[in-house]
Order: sequence, then C-alpha cells, then structure tokens
Amino acid sequence: MASSHTQTVELGERSYPIVVGRGLLAGQFDLAAHVSGADCLIVSNETVAPLYLQKLTANLSGKTVKTLILPDGEAHKTIDSSTRVIDALVDAGANRDTTLIALGGGVIGDITGFAAATYMRGVPVIQVATTLLAQVDSSVGGKTGVNHPGGKNLIGAFHQPKLVLIDTETLSTLPARELAAGLAEAVKHGAIADADYFHWMEQNAAALLARDMDALAHLIMRSCQIKAAVVAEDEREHGARALLNFGHTFAHAIENSLGYGEWLHGEAVAAGMLMAAELGGLDDAQTGRLVSLLEAFNLPVRPPPVGAARLRAAMSLDKKVAAKRLRFILLHAIGDAYISEDVADELLSRVLARGDA
Amino acid sequence: MASSHTQTVELGERSYPIVVGRGLLAGQFDLAAHVSGADCLIVSNETVAPLYLQKLTANLSGKTVKTLILPDGEAHKTIDSSTRVIDALVDAGANRDTTLIALGGGVIGDITGFAAATYMRGVPVIQVATTLLAQVDSSVGGKTGVNHPGGKNLIGAFHQPKLVLIDTETLSTLPARELAAGLAEAVKHGAIADADYFHWMEQNAAALLARDMDALAHLIMRSCQIKAAVVAEDEREHGARALLNFGHTFAHAIENSLGYGEWLHGEAVAAGMLMAAELGGLDDAQTGRLVSLLEAFNLPVRPPPVGAARLRAAMSLDKKVAAKRLRFILLHAIGDAYISEDVADELLSRVLARGDA
Repeated sequence: MASSHTQTVELGERSYPIVVGRGLLAGQFDLAAHVSGADCLIVSNETVAPLYLQKLTANLSGKTVKTLILPDGEAHKTIDSSTRVIDALVDAGANRDTTLIALGGGVIGDITGFAAATYMRGVPVIQVATTLLAQVDSSVGGKTGVNHPGGKNLIGAFHQPKLVLIDTETLSTLPARELAAGLAEAVKHGAIADADYFHWMEQNAAALLARDMDALAHLIMRSCQIKAAVVAEDEREHGARALLNFGHTFAHAIENSLGYGEWLHGEAVAAGMLMAAELGGLDDAQTGRLVSLLEAFNLPVRPPPVGAARLRAAMSLDKKVAAKRLRFILLHAIGDAYISEDVADELLSRVLARGDA
Repeated sequence: MASSHTQTVELGERSYPIVVGRGLLAGQFDLAAHVSGADCLIVSNETVAPLYLQKLTANLSGKTVKTLILPDGEAHKTIDSSTRVIDALVDAGANRDTTLIALGGGVIGDITGFAAATYMRGVPVIQVATTLLAQVDSSVGGKTGVNHPGGKNLIGAFHQPKLVLIDTETLSTLPARELAAGLAEAVKHGAIADADYFHWMEQNAAALLARDMDALAHLIMRSCQIKAAVVAEDEREHGARALLNFGHTFAHAIENSLGYGEWLHGEAVAAGMLMAAELGGLDDAQTGRLVSLLEAFNLPVRPPPVGAARLRAAMSLDKKVAAKRLRFILLHAIGDAYISEDVADELLSRVLARGDA
C-alpha cells in the first residue's frame, strides 16, 4: 500500500516533484523534509479540514504549524480570501522562509498559491491536492489566482509550488459530482494530446466512476505527465501551454454567466469542450466519442440556458482574448489540438446558442 | 535640449531601457513605439495628473488611452488601490496586450506595477517617473507592491517594466521635501557601492538642491547605472540586491510606526541609514560625512520619537527578517556595504532609542 510514484516538473532551479500514492497522508511520506523553514501555515476549507487537517499536521512534527480555514466553494475565490491568507501570515509573524500549504481542491490551491506569490513578493507553497480536479490539473503548473466579478482568474500570478502531494485515498470521500468534474480535465488532456489515453478512459470509464484506486492512480499519473511536459516547455503560456485551455474560454463564460460556483469548473469545461469541438469541425464520429465519454462521466454536454448574448459578453473579458481577437483551442482530431484565431462569427453564434431552448 | 541618455537593465529577454532627458514628455521621445498593443491605461494621482497627464497623452497618438486618477500619498498604497486599477482594466475591457503606464512617483509606480503583475497574470507596464525618488530608485528593478497595516510592501511581486521614462523637467515642479527624499536614495547608492559618487554629491550638494538640471541628470544616470547593475546581477534578491536595502529595515519600521505617509519614504531612509551606520561601527569621520551630506539635503538624521519598543515590534515583520533572525545591511566604509546577521541586541536597542528624548 505504501507505493508511490513521482513525476518531476522540469523547470530548472524551479523544478519540483509531484508525488502520487495511496495513504501518503497516513505517514507514508516525509512531508516535513520539504518544508525548508521552521514555520508553515496550512490553508484549507470547512469541508476538507475536518477530514484531513489532523492527518496532514501529524506529518509536520518539528515544525510550527498554524492553520486558516476558509469557506468552501468557487464563490469564495476572491481577492478578499487571498487577503485573509495574507492577514493570517502577518498575524503569525511569517517571513520569507514560511511555507504555505494548500490542503484542498482547485479553489484552495489557487487562493493559497496567489497569496504565496504575493506575500513578501513570494514565499514557498506546497499543494496537497484533495480533489480529482486539483490532482489531475490545477495543482500542477504554477497558475494561481482569484476571480473578479468581471471574469475568472483575472487577478493572479505564475508561482510554481515546491511540491505537489497527492494522496489518492482522499478520493474516497470526494462527492460524485466533484469526481466527475475532475474527470473532465482528464478528458481534456486526452483530447488535446493523447488519443491512446482518451481510448483508455473510454475503456475504463466504469472503473473510474466506481473509484477503482488503481485506475484513478493511473489517470492522475498520466494527466500529470501530460501537464508537466506542457508546462516544462512553455511555463508562461507564450505558446503550446495555451492548448491546455481547450474548452476554457467557453467554460469561463459559463461560470461567469451563471455566478461562480453554480456549476463546478470541470462541468463548465465539459460543456465548453463540446462547444469548441463543434466550432473546430471535429468529425461526427469523433465528436460522438467525446459526447459519449463525457456523458459516461455524468458531465453536461451543452451550456446552461443563460442566453448566447450573455455568454458572448462574458467571453470578451476572458484572458484568452488576445488583442481583442477571439482565440480558440480547437481539435483536428482526438489527441490533436491547435490554436485558431480564425473562427466565423456566425458559427460562433450558433455554438453559443446551443444551450438556449 | 533634446539630448537624452539611455541605460539598459540587462535581464535577457526582459531587458529594458531607462531613458533620461530634459523635455522628453514635450515630444522628444516616441513613447507610442513602446506600447505594443493598441490600448493603454495611464494611472496617476491628483497632484501629478494636472501637471503632466495631458503632455503624456499627447505622446500616445494612435493608441486608445484611458486614465485612472488615484489620491496622492503613501497612505493610499494599499491593496484597495491596486484593486481599483484592476477594476479600471476590467471596465476598459483590457486584455493581455493592454499596457499600463504609471505616471507619478514611487507610490503610483508600485501600485501600478503590482496591478500589472497580477492582471491576467501579467501585462506590460511602463514607468514614467516624475519624482526624484522614483527616478533614481523605485521605478527601476521591478519591485512592485502595496503596504499592509502589518508592514511596508508586504504584498507584492517582481515584475519588470518595459521602459522607464524620466523627463528631468518634471523636477521643476517637485516640492522641496520630495526632492530631498529622492536625494536620500542617491546617497544610499553612493554609500553602499561608490565612494566617488558619494564624494561627487558632497561637492555638488548646493547645485543639486538648487535644481541645477545638469547636476540632477548626472545624479539620476549614476544612480540608475548602479541600480541596473545590481538588479542585472540578482533580480530576485537572493544575494547582492539586498545591499540596496541599506537603511530600509529601520525606514520601514519608522514608516509603519508613524503611520504611512507621515514621513516620506526617503526621509525614513535617511534616518535609517544613520541607524545602520552606527550599528555597523562605521568610523566617526565617515559617519560624520554621512550626517553632513544628509543634513545638507535637509534630511532627518535620527528616528522620530515613537519609542524603541514600537520600532522593534515593527521591524520583526520587515521582509528583511530571514528565518526570524534580523539581517542588516551595514557599512565597512562609504562605498563598501555588507550583510550581517550578527548584531548584538544591546547595540540594536541603543540605536532604536536614538529618537527618544
């Protein structure tokens, strides 16, 4: 049971390991060795802390450990929450050697990472990812940030963690809806970069939904490999990293239009990927496979009925809009993505209207 | 009158020019050529905007220009002000190609730079420095940030500008107290790195105070050269850049204790440098020269009477505190600084009490 796998994100002196294993929080991993200073501040939320905070703290003997518990949910991914983390650091007398530890999913990871990026112009952060979405995607790669009423992640920074720790045991307590949301990002990785991986998910969909731990561990490792390779090549998204935004321009518009937290991020990505697939002219057979896999994972395959006009307005502030020109990640085929700035407006309107009655 | 000098900050693909000249804002410089996209947002304050905003805007023909005017003063260097800049960017529909332009002194530069560092995880920023302090020091090097009630610049990021533009003509409208505050940072550069420069300031103190434009231009260029060299060697302050903090641990404690804005930053640095000189055992003759030069510039040479205990408490949160150990920049001699973590507490107490009656 103590086996673990390590994948390194290769970024020169900012390289770091992603360690994946079952039971790591139960003492199978020397976490304290990765905390360079004497002090750390754990940031978690009201849902995750009762489940895993005590276990995590037990791995930090010899360190001075403070904790901050935030409310749960995307609605709290705000500048106010990151300011609360900064306030807690100030209260703790934290300095440049204090390590922040994010214990939770993507929201906690993004808030904590952003606070770490900006406190004293940067302190170390460790991501302890407890949701599948964070484990396959958001905890890796150093994108941090918070939402603004005007758009998702509009305030943020690139700040790589020192370590990503993934105890697959945490998936046993994850709500089914959140498990599915994480699977959406894994589908994204297959869709943009690895047709074999996509095929493997098709064949193992039932096992993944049934939380077969070996299947989930394989999924996490494969997604982390793909993400680590892309990030190593293009840390700050000047080029290839943009492919990881497949489905995200639409997803962000959906989340912003509905109100943050109404749909989970992964759910919005699922609908957004199909909108992008239609936009890019993926053939019917391959589009059908994408629909089937997302449906197998109980994910939405069309946008909510908020209206095409509302979605279009929300899109114009998305970060992927370069120089006022809409930029989309589209698919030639499953496993083969490309960037396009050449989408007919009429086609876009049709795709945006797919959720309307 | 159209002559200008350029000093490059060498940081690989993030290199940028510092352009210094008299009358640059009156059309001697092609600013628009340095704005990569079509849009820019100028951030200034209520004091500077009436003087220079129109001139600056005239240099941006062909660009879409929006402006945001903040209140003046260090008391407004807060996370709320940087959020106001972000809000203005959102309102303007700004994207990753929008350039922020800071028109003002160190406070406007720090707020605007931090907003640029965090909007969409980083957009371009140009510093148009209109105070001597910003021209000799704060506009160069990419340190951005805002204050927290617990300490100076506790929230920030490293984010290099694309260009630093210094029109020495702006010094003609600068209040005398602010001119002196800028001279304090120039004294710092001489004190830590260049005895000849220090000597030059001693000989030209009267001309500098009388705003001899040639003398001021020489001062700005020499300080920018020193700062650019240090930043090129150690952008993120892992080593030698810390020497630029000479006087600053004490200065930050003074500013925090008095309330931000009560003393100008440069005034606090002046008093802080003498406290550090005493701590490091600079000999009497050289300490006397430091006192004389600062007094010639009408700068304070001892801390305000806030009490040693208050100053000590404020110091413990300063960023220069590494691993709870106080770290000071001290002088062997004028022009020769070093880092020390080995300061006797008794001596520190005596220095902190220098402002008490």
